[in-house]
Amino acid sequence: MTIASTTAPAVGPLDPDDGQRAYDLDRAHVFHSWSAQEKITPLVFAGGAGCEIWDFEGNYYLDFSSQLVNTNIGHQHPKVIAGIKAQADVLATVAPAHANLTRGEAASRILARAGQPFSKVFFTNGGADANENAIRMARLVTGRDKVLSMYRSYHGNTGAAVVATGDWRRVPNEYARGHVHFFGPFEYRTEFWSTSAAQESERALKHLERIIQSEGATSIAAILIETVPGTAGILIPPPGYLTGVRKLADDYGIVLIFDEVMAGFGRTGDWFAFQNDTVNPDGIVPDLITFAKGVNSGYVPAGGVIIPPWIADEFGERVFPGGLTYSGHPLAMGAIVATLDAMEEEGIVDNAARVGRDLLAPGLAALAAKHPMIGDVRGVGVFWALDLVSDPETREPVGPQVIAALKSELMKRGLLPFAADNRIHVVPPCIVTDEEVARALAIYDEAFTAVEA
Amino acid sequence: MTIASTTAPAVGPLDPDDGQRAYDLDRAHVFHSWSAQEKITPLVFAGGAGCEIWDFEGNYYLDFSSQLVNTNIGHQHPKVIAGIKAQADVLATVAPAHANLTRGEAASRILARAGQPFSKVFFTNGGADANENAIRMARLVTGRDKVLSMYRSYHGNTGAAVVATGDWRRVPNEYARGHVHFFGPFEYRTEFWSTSAAQESERALKHLERIIQSEGATSIAAILIETVPGTAGILIPPPGYLTGVRKLADDYGIVLIFDEVMAGFGRTGDWFAFQNDTVNPDGIVPDLITFAKGVNSGYVPAGGVIIPPWIADEFGERVFPGGLTYSGHPLAMGAIVATLDAMEEEGIVDNAARVGRDLLAPGLAALAAKHPMIGDVRGVGVFWALDLVSDPETREPVGPQVIAALKSELMKRGLLPFAADNRIHVVPPCIVTDEEVARALAIYDEAFTAVEA
Repeated sequence: MTIASTTAPAVGPLDPDDGQRAYDLDRAHVFHSWSAQEKITPLVFAGGAGCEIWDFEGNYYLDFSSQLVNTNIGHQHPKVIAGIKAQADVLATVAPAHANLTRGEAASRILARAGQPFSKVFFTNGGADANENAIRMARLVTGRDKVLSMYRSYHGNTGAAVVATGDWRRVPNEYARGHVHFFGPFEYRTEFWSTSAAQESERALKHLERIIQSEGATSIAAILIETVPGTAGILIPPPGYLTGVRKLADDYGIVLIFDEVMAGFGRTGDWFAFQNDTVNPDGIVPDLITFAKGVNSGYVPAGGVIIPPWIADEFGERVFPGGLTYSGHPLAMGAIVATLDAMEEEGIVDNAARVGRDLLAPGLAALAAKHPMIGDVRGVGVFWALDLVSDPETREPVGPQVIAALKSELMKRGLLPFAADNRIHVVPPCIVTDEEVARALAIYDEAFTAVEA
Repeated sequence: MTIASTTAPAVGPLDPDDGQRAYDLDRAHVFHSWSAQEKITPLVFAGGAGCEIWDFEGNYYLDFSSQLVNTNIGHQHPKVIAGIKAQADVLATVAPAHANLTRGEAASRILARAGQPFSKVFFTNGGADANENAIRMARLVTGRDKVLSMYRSYHGNTGAAVVATGDWRRVPNEYARGHVHFFGPFEYRTEFWSTSAAQESERALKHLERIIQSEGATSIAAILIETVPGTAGILIPPPGYLTGVRKLADDYGIVLIFDEVMAGFGRTGDWFAFQNDTVNPDGIVPDLITFAKGVNSGYVPAGGVIIPPWIADEFGERVFPGGLTYSGHPLAMGAIVATLDAMEEEGIVDNAARVGRDLLAPGLAALAAKHPMIGDVRGVGVFWALDLVSDPETREPVGPQVIAALKSELMKRGLLPFAADNRIHVVPPCIVTDEEVARALAIYDEAFTAVEA
């Protein structure tokens, strides 16, 4: 690896021996997610600041992955680090049954950003258990079992623990199957033989309604969708789609859950993706919102469900059968309070909107114009995908070798990318500067040129 | 409430207005777990240190709940707080795919305590997703579906998110049902008409084997049990039971998972409950161990699965289909490293063993001798249950009014209790001092006397 940049400050001297030790310990003792253990070669990072991250050899990288699209405020934001330390000095943990000031402050800040009609927050450890609990609420308030979600989606990695449980907490929760999948709109790779955004929206809604009717509306508790499907390809819904989904949910008495784990808290240039004009021009509102990642940039694990009065009130006299030891964890809450305050004070969400509109939209369009491998560019804010094809006509996705070559060329030039299937996702922190975007665009350009050669 | 104790230091001046604000924000905006929202009156805590926790009015409580039996090292241990802050200064978060030195250090410390044959750790956010992933591993290595767990058990609150997922990560995980429950041994309330510990063990094993045979051994992936069922009543297995379960698992090719989320990391007076002579006199070893809570006392959310080579190697060339954004989260790992080092340096696990043997065992036995309401005392280390009965002959459990009255009398006298069903669990931090145990025993005595009156 070459030294890509030396603009970021290192914390203390970097010792390559520490990097070797980190690698050796990892390979010996850490079991990795979503991987064949012998087929991976993890990168080792020593530290980070803002949009940069570095290793123990002193190589610096522009982090255009935001890790797993979670460091919306960048690495090591000083106000968030200070907030974590301040809470650590007072009380790191407390049982969820006990009230905690920082938890209340975090909930009120989240609700202020979610807007009407939301009134309560149920906190979890991350996005998966946020979705678990939103589904639980939808099933219990409707008395129905099935959940409709998209084939192009990701909602978390859990699915068995409460069913394994023996005590009463299992009994109202024995419904982890009952899922039905449907196709959402995706104009570039339509499932509906459509030839325009309007037609894609209309046909995707017709498809969804036929699924609802065929499954039996009275058996369906919830429609669970990512407001903007993220890892699946950053699929901005065409105009009218979310409005139509809201109407179907209303017509059939189904709870509408928006998973904003990846799309929320600034990623689209709004606090929530459903507040974004491009994503949701009619401004419809879901029944439940799930979140994690950007709420505190993942500095301390946290997620949750944002709840309106009509659902909260269903559990006024009736026990809500869900919970977890670290629900509303004070240290995680301290990180939320500091993150949301800093994002507001520093105009970080507006920055994401401006960067998307003024720099990434034109910059990535120019990149696509130059490189035919880029079949489609889609996104908003700091949430973009380059859909790579071996043939622009057939839109045949490039294979894993092309993606591996691109990753290598990008890393060589000092950019840490986010790759998924045949795509490169351009997902920097919301704090990204004009200079960093310019530098990144130049690196993407060079890397595509190198791989084409 | 009266002021119970003033021995612990307060962090800064305590302002009752902050307490009111914490309560008001909680009631307005925080949705509580396992509760009917309008039927709860949360306590408000301002801070904690060691075995004490206090509110904004300056009332101090001996924390004999360890919150949700997780603050094994007590509140605000200075070395753990320092460890969290030091990691916060370097790097709060990093994606799990990238190697991280603190994560490797945490894994190696956990493995050193687990002993042979364990070689790898998969990190999660807590106990539920630890069990999710252990079950996933068991199902994938056996190619079988069913999981056997006890009616008297708790293994977490999740059960739907990966099934809702649309992408490929769903497909190897569509098996959240398939659970079969059985009765474990519980001499005081036997399900097997036994009249001795030996008979209870023998009959519970016979029952488990009949369940295995009746379900079909070749359909069973795992037996998942809490080494010592915790919230279900701190049910120390009778001699021979775990040995017999190990043998059944071996005979029928079933993966044996010990859930040590509550029992692990010092609670029993050993690093793991399965290493405790009372719990597991023959020293049998499970195939997988799940943990959370005590590993870092919950100062930062974390859990995980401890894996032997034979299971890790199954995923050498084959993708393990599980993962989560905060797996191996650096800040959580920093808290683990600091916690495990401090517990070792300060002999905290030995203290738990000593307190259990020399103080709680005789002290709680004396309490039971004096108060006929205490039908059974059971436990080890700092992990004890008082099983309360309205009639010592019939062993009829006391009702919720008795438990509510006891809680109130204990709180009045400055002790924060842990209550479950008809029981008071005596579960202080592992650092509890002789003086604190003596004070607590006196308070329990007074509270029982008051409720009896």
